[in-house]
This record gives sequence, C-alpha cells and structure tokens, in this order.
Amino acid sequence: MSQATRVPQEERTRAMRARLLDATVELLAERGFAGTSTTLVSQRAGVSRGAQLHHFPAKNDLVVAAVEHITEARGEALKEAAGALSEGGRRTRHVLAMLAEQVTSPVFAAALELWVAARTDEQLAAAVGPLEQRIGRELHRATVELLDVDESKPGVRELVQATLDLVRGLALADTITDDAARRERILDHWAEVLERELQ
Amino acid sequence: MSQATRVPQEERTRAMRARLLDATVELLAERGFAGTSTTLVSQRAGVSRGAQLHHFPAKNDLVVAAVEHITEARGEALKEAAGALSEGGRRTRHVLAMLAEQVTSPVFAAALELWVAARTDEQLAAAVGPLEQRIGRELHRATVELLDVDESKPGVRELVQATLDLVRGLALADTITDDAARRERILDHWAEVLERELQ
Repeated sequence: MSQATRVPQEERTRAMRARLLDATVELLAERGFAGTSTTLVSQRAGVSRGAQLHHFPAKNDLVVAAVEHITEARGEALKEAAGALSEGGRRTRHVLAMLAEQVTSPVFAAALELWVAARTDEQLAAAVGPLEQRIGRELHRATVELLDVDESKPGVRELVQATLDLVRGLALADTITDDAARRERILDHWAEVLERELQ
Repeated sequence: MSQATRVPQEERTRAMRARLLDATVELLAERGFAGTSTTLVSQRAGVSRGAQLHHFPAKNDLVVAAVEHITEARGEALKEAAGALSEGGRRTRHVLAMLAEQVTSPVFAAALELWVAARTDEQLAAAVGPLEQRIGRELHRATVELLDVDESKPGVRELVQATLDLVRGLALADTITDDAARRERILDHWAEVLERELQ
C-alpha cells in the first residue's frame, strides 16, 4: 500500500463521524425530528449500525452532536468572513445579509426541529439548553466583531441582541412560506436604523 | 325545565367545539405535535370520540382549527386593549409588553408546534400557510393601531414588521430557557429606538 492511500484510523473515524453528523442535519431539515431515525441516518451516511451506536448510543446524542458540529463549523466561517467586509453603511447591510443567510439555511431548520423537540423532552432539553446558550454567546461575539461596534457604549449590546432576535424571527417566518422579498426590505431598513443608532 | 336551564343545541355545539379547541392548544403546548393525539384531546375535553370525529375528522383539522380559534380570540383582546393605552413613550413600551406577552403564552408554543410540524407535512402546510399569513396581516394591522403610527411615512411599515419579527425571535429564545430578563432589557431599548425612528 502506498503512503498516499494509507489512511490512519483516527482520520477514518473523524470522517465517519462527520458523515453521520451531516446526514443527521440533512434528515432533521428534510423530515423533522419525529421523522429522523438512527436507522435512516446510518443508511444515508453509509455507516454500519454497530459503528454508529458505538459513537452515538442514542438518537438524542446524535442530534445534539450534529447541530453542535454544524453550527460551530458555520460560526467559524462567519468569523473568517469578517476580515473581507467593506467599511461604512455597506458593511452593516452586508453583515445582516450574512446573518440572515446563516439562519435561513437547512442548519437553522435542523436546529429549530431540535429546539422544538426539546420543549417537551426533558432529557433533550438538558443537552440543548446549554448548547443553545453557548451558540448564542458565540454568535453574539461574532456579530459584535462583524459590525465592528463598541459594546461598552450604552444600548449597543441591546441593539446587537435585538438584531440577532430579529434575524431569528425572520428565519422562523421563512420556514413555511418563502419570505425573502419581505426580509430584504426589513433588513435594508434595519441597516439604516443600526447605522444611525450605533454611531 | 325553566327557561334559564334550557340550553339550545347550537350553543351546546359551540361550547363543545370550544372545549375541543382549548384542549388541543393545551396539549400542543404541553406535549408537542407528535404527543398530541385525537384520543387525548377528546379525553381532556370530555367529548365523545364520535362527536369529536363529526366536527374534526382528522388530527390536522383539529390542530389548525385550534390554533386559528385561539389566535383570533387573542387578536380581538389585543385590539380591544388599544383604547386603554396611555400616550407617548410609555405607550410604545406598553405595546411591546403586550406583544411579548402574546407570543410567550402557551398559544405561541402551540402555534410553533404546528408551524414546525407543517415544515415537513405538505397537507398540514397547505392549511397552516394561509392561516399564518392571515394571522400575520391581522397582527400587523393591530400593531399599527396600537402604536398609533402612520404607515404612509417611509420606513414605518418596515419598522412595524421588524418589531413583530423581533418579538417572534424573542419568543423562540424563550421556549427552552426563561429569557424574561434579557427580553425586558431588549424591549426597553427597542421602545426608545421606535420612539426616535417613528417620530
């Protein structure tokens, strides 16, 4: 076997976990929490049931890990994109577009499924609650950096939080009907308000 | 039988429907969409299976009618409350408090369950989509009236919509963890922004 084709065990394991987690997010987005079974996940990921159960003994372990994994990957991408942003008013609108894109992706749909399922599942809520808080803090920090604002000024922190809650509300409005045109108008206007208020 | 105790059939039917719809909203909020069965609803409402099936042949009929019924009742209450509001800055904050109360109630939880279930159920989406659009339009109209603003001015419409999307985002944030303290701070600040921007 040549050096190039010899894949270390650790790397194979990592790739398999990633396939399982990607398949879980896809299924949550496509079929919802109730329609996502561990059998479907192992089929889609092309991973044996035994290997899957070894890494994720129960459905709840799998869905929490999946949403965590994908959200973190997207959070990293968001932070990396910060450097490429332009300055001034266009920057604010650009950041809002990035945030909106983030939450109208299948990842938001998967997270929403998990979130709503956790409402009525105590065991799931115990895992999802802390995860959501951590994701929320990281997204807040990334947004402050992206908007390039100073949170020590009064009201800035609340405006950043309001922006993230607004974007989450817009994402929810987009889950059943395509709400893109309305969303663009609202974000155009919100960018102007933010520019005035954050000065 | 005296005049007072004779209840007309039509009224009995209306009361029975109301019990079924109230029980459905309660169960959606408590147990989620998957955990709400027509059997549980008839038990909680104290209505026979036969009578229930006569009025609502399938679970989807029941859940859509329930969310519609309760949302409309609350919408009416909101409109009636408009007259009692004070003027000026306190009015804006008061309206935001009313909207936040509206969406952090069990009715929002029930609607959220329906909304998310409809994401992956075409038949349900066909009924929920138009209902949500109508509810959205009515809530928008009520909010314009409550805030006492002029939508013909540029940007006012977008800010009212942003306010409703913000409140929806805040409601979503409150579904797993109690988010009341953060929500109050954000709405305090949002009221100030609205006051400045809507002048």
